[in-house]
Amino acid sequence: MLAAGVTAPLTQAKPTVTFSPFQAGKYRILALVFDDYETLDLHGPVEMLGHMPNAEIKLVATKEIVKSYQGPRMVADCLTNQTYDCDLLLIPGGLGTRTLVSDIALRQWLVEQVTRSQNVFTVCTGTALLAMTSVLNGRKATTNKMAFEWVTSLNDNPQWQPKARWVFDGKFLTSSGVSAGTDAALFWVKHLHGEQEARRIEALTEYSWNQDASNDPYAVV
Amino acid sequence: MLAAGVTAPLTQAKPTVTFSPFQAGKYRILALVFDDYETLDLHGPVEMLGHMPNAEIKLVATKEIVKSYQGPRMVADCLTNQTYDCDLLLIPGGLGTRTLVSDIALRQWLVEQVTRSQNVFTVCTGTALLAMTSVLNGRKATTNKMAFEWVTSLNDNPQWQPKARWVFDGKFLTSSGVSAGTDAALFWVKHLHGEQEARRIEALTEYSWNQDASNDPYAVV
Repeated sequence: MLAAGVTAPLTQAKPTVTFSPFQAGKYRILALVFDDYETLDLHGPVEMLGHMPNAEIKLVATKEIVKSYQGPRMVADCLTNQTYDCDLLLIPGGLGTRTLVSDIALRQWLVEQVTRSQNVFTVCTGTALLAMTSVLNGRKATTNKMAFEWVTSLNDNPQWQPKARWVFDGKFLTSSGVSAGTDAALFWVKHLHGEQEARRIEALTEYSWNQDASNDPYAVV
Repeated sequence: MLAAGVTAPLTQAKPTVTFSPFQAGKYRILALVFDDYETLDLHGPVEMLGHMPNAEIKLVATKEIVKSYQGPRMVADCLTNQTYDCDLLLIPGGLGTRTLVSDIALRQWLVEQVTRSQNVFTVCTGTALLAMTSVLNGRKATTNKMAFEWVTSLNDNPQWQPKARWVFDGKFLTSSGVSAGTDAALFWVKHLHGEQEARRIEALTEYSWNQDASNDPYAVV
């Protein structure tokens, strides 16, 4: 046995050691941030999802510090130089997406990151970043109603929904503009933990939850 | 004249040079952040106020990086080692306030910062930090309805309002829990720029604004 060990090929592959920003056993929420992300697209869902049992939220970006469209700066917990196993990938929108849809490296990262994400949740024009890949093809999806024409022009293959506060199809939860992400986040709490838990978080945050996905005051039809 | 200048006392006071984090001519919003601030207390108002014409939002903290209760970290633009002229001082709440109400240095900073702030806007238990000073004494004020008993126990002298989504009295705008801050922020936009501007931002963010301060679904009476 010893001799066999000594003569084992030196080129044998080592197990890949992958850094994870998450603690073991947590519900792992990975949020993509970038310059000119829209503040509430990110922080509305972070507020609601962050009160779920056992949730852990980490930020991923192409660089260590990013600045929101409204000014305040966030610190990334990990970088897009690798992908990460997670339970929910959260993608906010904002003016920053207008240039990011042309970022080939980020697009490639997204395709790989989506495969390592149990579910994917886009808010507002965050959907545009997914629309530049083929992952939404054939799926029902929605986006910011003020940017609906632009986002839907990027890819004809998703089944775009012009009247929906949010849409859940396959592994993808896509929501309408900005505040719709907060309502969709409470839908996600309900989906995972039941209505009582969603109502607990709604009350804890003194929120008025629009709990009906078809109640879309900003529909474009 | 020259002789008089030469013999001028060397102990003459120099003008104080004060750093300002703001650009000249901006509507200067300074937001206090601290560990375990509640995400939406800060970012709901940042979203709405950040769309006002000419607004600039800067973060102030006792240290360079602070972590929200929900996990993500923010970068401070300036520190509480000095005070700053600003148009609006924004104070979010959160679990972090439970210890901060005993922080004597922060309390002293707040008293000085309030005098250099044209207006002061508290969200949720951010009101507790002001209640530890005397600046709200005699003023109508409100706070998070789930923490109402605690906050109001800190100081008998404000006229505490158990049923109010927000209250504006003197230079102080105080709001109820978490999401109420977002509604109060749109009230502030209306106060400064008129209803049309508030409605523009409401639509831009696909929000459903509770525009009636007396419509408080979480009132404790």
